[in-house]
Amino acid sequence: MAKELTNREENYSQWYNDLVVRADLAENSAVRGCMVIKPYGYAIWEKMQATLDKMFKDTGHVNAYFPLFIPKSFFSKEASHVKGFAKECAIVTHYRLKNAEDGKGVVVDENAKLEEELIIRPTSETIIWNTYKNWIQSYRDLPLLINQWANIVRWEMRTRLFLRTTEFLWQEGHTAHATKEEAQEEALRMLDIYVDFVENYMALPVIKGDKTEAERFAGAENTYTFESIMQDGKALQSGTSHFLGQNFAKAFDVKFTSREGKEEYVWATSWGVTTRLVGAIVMAHSDNNGLIIPPKIAPIHVVIVPIYKQPEQLNAITRKALEIKAILEAQGLTVKYDDRDTHKPGWKFSEYELKGVPVRLAIGPRDLENNTIEVARRDTLEKNIVSFNEIEKYVVELLDNIQQNIYDKALAFRNKKTHYVDDWNEFKEIITKEGGFIMAHWDGTSETELKIKEETKATIRCIPFDSKPEQGKCIYSGKSSKQRVLFAIAY
Amino acid sequence: MAKELTNREENYSQWYNDLVVRADLAENSAVRGCMVIKPYGYAIWEKMQATLDKMFKDTGHVNAYFPLFIPKSFFSKEASHVKGFAKECAIVTHYRLKNAEDGKGVVVDENAKLEEELIIRPTSETIIWNTYKNWIQSYRDLPLLINQWANIVRWEMRTRLFLRTTEFLWQEGHTAHATKEEAQEEALRMLDIYVDFVENYMALPVIKGDKTEAERFAGAENTYTFESIMQDGKALQSGTSHFLGQNFAKAFDVKFTSREGKEEYVWATSWGVTTRLVGAIVMAHSDNNGLIIPPKIAPIHVVIVPIYKQPEQLNAITRKALEIKAILEAQGLTVKYDDRDTHKPGWKFSEYELKGVPVRLAIGPRDLENNTIEVARRDTLEKNIVSFNEIEKYVVELLDNIQQNIYDKALAFRNKKTHYVDDWNEFKEIITKEGGFIMAHWDGTSETELKIKEETKATIRCIPFDSKPEQGKCIYSGKSSKQRVLFAIAY
Repeated sequence: MAKELTNREENYSQWYNDLVVRADLAENSAVRGCMVIKPYGYAIWEKMQATLDKMFKDTGHVNAYFPLFIPKSFFSKEASHVKGFAKECAIVTHYRLKNAEDGKGVVVDENAKLEEELIIRPTSETIIWNTYKNWIQSYRDLPLLINQWANIVRWEMRTRLFLRTTEFLWQEGHTAHATKEEAQEEALRMLDIYVDFVENYMALPVIKGDKTEAERFAGAENTYTFESIMQDGKALQSGTSHFLGQNFAKAFDVKFTSREGKEEYVWATSWGVTTRLVGAIVMAHSDNNGLIIPPKIAPIHVVIVPIYKQPEQLNAITRKALEIKAILEAQGLTVKYDDRDTHKPGWKFSEYELKGVPVRLAIGPRDLENNTIEVARRDTLEKNIVSFNEIEKYVVELLDNIQQNIYDKALAFRNKKTHYVDDWNEFKEIITKEGGFIMAHWDGTSETELKIKEETKATIRCIPFDSKPEQGKCIYSGKSSKQRVLFAIAY
Repeated sequence: MAKELTNREENYSQWYNDLVVRADLAENSAVRGCMVIKPYGYAIWEKMQATLDKMFKDTGHVNAYFPLFIPKSFFSKEASHVKGFAKECAIVTHYRLKNAEDGKGVVVDENAKLEEELIIRPTSETIIWNTYKNWIQSYRDLPLLINQWANIVRWEMRTRLFLRTTEFLWQEGHTAHATKEEAQEEALRMLDIYVDFVENYMALPVIKGDKTEAERFAGAENTYTFESIMQDGKALQSGTSHFLGQNFAKAFDVKFTSREGKEEYVWATSWGVTTRLVGAIVMAHSDNNGLIIPPKIAPIHVVIVPIYKQPEQLNAITRKALEIKAILEAQGLTVKYDDRDTHKPGWKFSEYELKGVPVRLAIGPRDLENNTIEVARRDTLEKNIVSFNEIEKYVVELLDNIQQNIYDKALAFRNKKTHYVDDWNEFKEIITKEGGFIMAHWDGTSETELKIKEETKATIRCIPFDSKPEQGKCIYSGKSSKQRVLFAIAY
């Protein structure tokens, strides 16, 4: 099957689309820009959800659900928010269909026009802060630490499976605090949770930092981001955490009485990650044989394939396979035994490479004689013969090893593709021909940032937290700068 | 706090609304007919989701996600489906807003009108069967056993928190099969899973059966339902499972090549339960002090409240409380220790009664001396003094006991409110004055069914599976009948 994939080195973009569809992650739907997330892709999202949801709850957050619809007027309340979000969106104007007069199908009933149009949420700050107004009176009501798992619609003109779709799934945290310091801490805490998840579960090293003013969330005072590099050298922003100041509290008049009896506006954060994370797994780790999924988020950890010529050999193999399956499942692993007689072992091998199952075990008649199993790891495609008695320990350690190896490989790639550049021509040359991350000095103005973007398509991905103070000159304007920032062309 | 609840016996409907809001389950939002599900209400839904999701997966189902939007033309493809669903719905007609010319807010950009309107899904059969067309070619592709957790919009005119809202959350299973028998089995299997869940987790006894033709899902050949009785004597349909025949396969041209090489239409089922289940918990079990939540779906099983006069007593109590908390958590229970100094014990007692926490433990200085704990159960409000050494066993058994007691009480209530009636005047008298379930003979015609509905508002809730064959005469028409059916006024 893998043969049908476009070669990654020849056409990265086509390879990505082929792989997403062929590996049964997702496909385009009949509705422009909306995807169908297929069961295998959804299973990866479920693993991500379960892990993140636990992390959120362990830090005191609870889930709730707010309406899909937002009254149009809500968007005008926070001035910069409307600029950023309320333009390209799905608008509900009517609430009834009727039979067409020509008898063919149904048409919109013009008598059922809404007084005020409803916008399908492109993000929920407005409807949530309108609700919080009734929930918050006193400092005793704070903090509110609430998260929502939901679908979101942004009317994107150019869409791409998982990376940019009109409808996508996400979580959005919306917290309310009594003090500025507490809200800032919360925004950074959630950033760290995301980074923990992306680095330790998705095996994807990131650079975390502040967004520049131009790249900030519409309505935020500060946006924290984490950026990773894809195999084509482009950057992918996987999620963001925002310190919203008192902007939404002021827009929706949310005040509280402090411990000292003073009336004050509430401080806010919001933070989210989306189904885009599934796309990041494909783009960052996978190869020409198919997906490479880090074990910690893989829907299936181990697949067992029986190898036999005579049907009567299958019984003994199956007994052994089920024994191994039970042993590994007792370790908390998800194991699939694929004894379908409709497909040959070779076909199955390709199939599970395409699907990125981290470990494949094969058992044939000779293995039964020798008390051995063939173990193949997906990340390096290496094979080993392992004794049956050692299989439990071997597989558990191998999965750890694969998880680490995928991370190490991604980190080495990023290091190779990160350039420290001090010359504008070199900057342009690298960004155009080679891509990757460029660490360069910047004069701190939106003007320069915009000109660099116009000339090269590169944007400032973030002002890294751990970038060392260093005297230098802006790569573009030559003005003085105290720190390098991260440039890249981004998805 | 409980004092502020309307009395259940005086105004059941207002009591329900008060309780849903006061117990922090949900509230009305700024958008007509849409609710905000608050964290405590959402936590109950999460418990329900987790339990059902495991039941679905244990029977071979997988999750996926299909678009929120359905092209208008899809609804016209299945003739009876459009009648049932496509009328009262949210219609997206535009995809862009622009700044108003008077500078005040934003208005719909008339240049951004969609060529074909999009309907927010009122149910997903059409978009899913349009997708299945590409997934199914051969008998090898069958069965497809797919479920989706999603939000749904039906433009309801009269709404009520959880029971009937414009937007609600649900799961919808959509399966595809090679044979009629297999699809029918699947529809019944899922009915049984729902009944298992509702009876054994929600502690709500149900009567399962067939819907009559008039009450059937739009597009189904058979709808299986399970009906339960609420404390006001009305029936609540908590979910349904449909055998769809080949209706959607024909509408969307979904055929497969059978094992014998013949081309045939695919057989289908769909089945769903919604956030309405949360409302059922309130309506079926709760009382004038607040919620009564069956332990198996309670977000918090046990709350521990310290009782002290001097702050210095708190330390020793807290040590003991945390010890008990750890012991109970080791049993898989969710335990909250509420040592807030902002509220008095009496206030906390009322609060947790309102919230329906099944077991409340109180520890005071005298308990420390005597090595005892006061244990209060929410369902009966009984209190007992239990020795510390026995608390683990006591609480675990008590929770089982509460679960069973809530079920038994609901069953006794249903039995009391179920009438076998053979006289039309008696039927009218009971349905009007007392409510409840009526088992009566029916001639099998939609005409009679409709007339009974017009005269009494009672509908046939189901033709019970376990109703004994019995010769009789239709309660309304006097024509002959072979079986009693279940009548009630329903939510």
